[in-house]
Amino acid sequence: MRVYLDNNATTMLDPEAYEAMKPFLTEKYGNPNSLHQFGSETHPALRGALDELYTAINAKDSDDIIITSCATESNNWVIKSTYFDKIATGEKSRIITTAVEHPAIAATCQFLKNFGVKLTILDVNEEGLITPEQLREAMGDDVALVSVMLANNETGMIFPIKELAKIAHEWGAPFHTDAVQALGKIPVNVQDLDVDFLSFSAHKFHGPKGIGGLYIKDSQKLSPLLHGGEHMGGRRSGTLDVAGIVGMARALTMSNKFLDFENSHVRRLRDKLENALLEIDDVSVVGSKDRRVPNTILASIKGVEGEAMLWDLNRAGIAASTGSACASEALESNPIMEAIGADKDLAHTALRLSLSRFNTEEEIDYAIGEIKKAVKRLRAISSTFAH
Amino acid sequence: MRVYLDNNATTMLDPEAYEAMKPFLTEKYGNPNSLHQFGSETHPALRGALDELYTAINAKDSDDIIITSCATESNNWVIKSTYFDKIATGEKSRIITTAVEHPAIAATCQFLKNFGVKLTILDVNEEGLITPEQLREAMGDDVALVSVMLANNETGMIFPIKELAKIAHEWGAPFHTDAVQALGKIPVNVQDLDVDFLSFSAHKFHGPKGIGGLYIKDSQKLSPLLHGGEHMGGRRSGTLDVAGIVGMARALTMSNKFLDFENSHVRRLRDKLENALLEIDDVSVVGSKDRRVPNTILASIKGVEGEAMLWDLNRAGIAASTGSACASEALESNPIMEAIGADKDLAHTALRLSLSRFNTEEEIDYAIGEIKKAVKRLRAISSTFAH
Repeated sequence: MRVYLDNNATTMLDPEAYEAMKPFLTEKYGNPNSLHQFGSETHPALRGALDELYTAINAKDSDDIIITSCATESNNWVIKSTYFDKIATGEKSRIITTAVEHPAIAATCQFLKNFGVKLTILDVNEEGLITPEQLREAMGDDVALVSVMLANNETGMIFPIKELAKIAHEWGAPFHTDAVQALGKIPVNVQDLDVDFLSFSAHKFHGPKGIGGLYIKDSQKLSPLLHGGEHMGGRRSGTLDVAGIVGMARALTMSNKFLDFENSHVRRLRDKLENALLEIDDVSVVGSKDRRVPNTILASIKGVEGEAMLWDLNRAGIAASTGSACASEALESNPIMEAIGADKDLAHTALRLSLSRFNTEEEIDYAIGEIKKAVKRLRAISSTFAH
Repeated sequence: MRVYLDNNATTMLDPEAYEAMKPFLTEKYGNPNSLHQFGSETHPALRGALDELYTAINAKDSDDIIITSCATESNNWVIKSTYFDKIATGEKSRIITTAVEHPAIAATCQFLKNFGVKLTILDVNEEGLITPEQLREAMGDDVALVSVMLANNETGMIFPIKELAKIAHEWGAPFHTDAVQALGKIPVNVQDLDVDFLSFSAHKFHGPKGIGGLYIKDSQKLSPLLHGGEHMGGRRSGTLDVAGIVGMARALTMSNKFLDFENSHVRRLRDKLENALLEIDDVSVVGSKDRRVPNTILASIKGVEGEAMLWDLNRAGIAASTGSACASEALESNPIMEAIGADKDLAHTALRLSLSRFNTEEEIDYAIGEIKKAVKRLRAISSTFAH
């Protein structure tokens, strides 16, 4: 049996999304910016896809959704253009973010520190969250941007974005949220959250890879990260990947249709898996179930190296993660793991299991059996675990 | 009949490239950075694709090809990271480029002017080219980068990149070329050209949209444009679009296999079309045939507005362009057209016809007939053309 429990890294492309993409990978290949029929015949699908995206996040007519290649681009865009528009000009000087942001935010901010950007990085508590009070204390007139993720990629914990955005706005600072791990898992309503910028990537909600977007409230000014032609009203250049856009929109619409299913079926399978893990001695899970997206478990299994666990599970056909795949090529201990959790060993013992609506009960039952076997085997040969 | 003669805007996806992509749009969806089998099963194809790309442009082992979302990203990357690495640090101050670069270069340079970057924009002659002497005169110790395109998107004219790169190097300046309109049309050998950076987009050589690359000689330092995780050795973050990369590599390999065919068959069809155009009174074509890529014609048809011509051709099922699709959403006269050509009306009368290996003789014969009809009709109702 093959069981994919690494949906926070990437997801299977929804077959319906792939079907929607096919015409634009074959006969309808025109550049939508071209004035002839090969270009214009892509317009209905493109407009339809943008409409689907607006509807999916409840954006207003005056708002903007700009297509990017992924949330990493969207995140870099917001941070770097804040630098150019507000900080390099001397208007503001500081960006506030958290200790558990995705590297696309964290590394970008660190890079810009070399060019005079001041950073305030808010520490997180044992659940991996910050409080509104922390942000309130950190705010000031010098803040150019506040950037806090909607849901954490490792823990699945949901941040109080609406409250945080309100605090930023009290100081006149725009608020950005990286919503990559939230879209398609929980309802995301940009008008209710009242954020200025929101990043997303299609491949995290069963859309294709290589496509994402940035929501911009009230079409407000933000210099391009990709300058060039007049694509997307001059806000993001590069020939539009119509197939990718159509696939992304269809995937998000489908995921939204399944939100109740995600919150019932997927949550029930997740909880079943989590409860089975917690029955094992010396296993802990970060964060309370009801404050997490419904698909994610970040467990610490005492005496079991995350990498060893991954290896055993992989031999059994089960895909999991020790933490963000985005950091795993480096094989360094994950800084996010260092920042969260009561368990000081978490950076070494973390096991992330992330489900999707395509997982079955049979798969979860199989995974429970294999995880228990692996824990037993690995603890038996562990030098650090007291038997 | 439908005839697509706008291949410099975008191209049809090669059916073989699409076949190669399919497994990675369906069952093989793992993140290549993940440590489990869903991730690692994508590695052979990924490595194979990168090998194909290296071979296609004759890159050395010590070189680097970094996957991006398109040449617009690659171009922005080189220019903006030159700003951060060399200019914002005070080491150098100037970028040299030409008056006919793609907006992805031109607009990026203009943006950075606001932040202290000095620009030298070399004027072009009537063929739309610069000479090595012009660059030699413009060089100095303050030059951070020279960026000159390999082939122009409007005219198809090929720049003397090898000589230009040598001049930049005599002053210790790195040399970048936007090779978007050259790859797949003429042989491109990065070792022979000796450029430091070279940008490309898959969708210009029958690959998928939304994927491109940047060649970096000797893996030299260039700060990321997309900071984040450790993808691509930390040089360009964002989850890899394996389907796109595999499709791009296969498309380039296929295009390179057809280079002789491009230079014989496509060139012959292009010349047939061009000669037929030149038989019409008061028609001129920019640049000599043998200094152009084999697929491109930029014609000026006196007394005929480019937009009107496009409209007539479109009704006959023929797709052409009045200039770069990248600028056409704005409906402004194209600055590149203003910079080139003996004909002062070129900005208004330009017709760009760009072929591909998928065009047939029958299509070209049909296009010749329809163009002649359209010229006759439009000149008859023209207020500026003396009958």
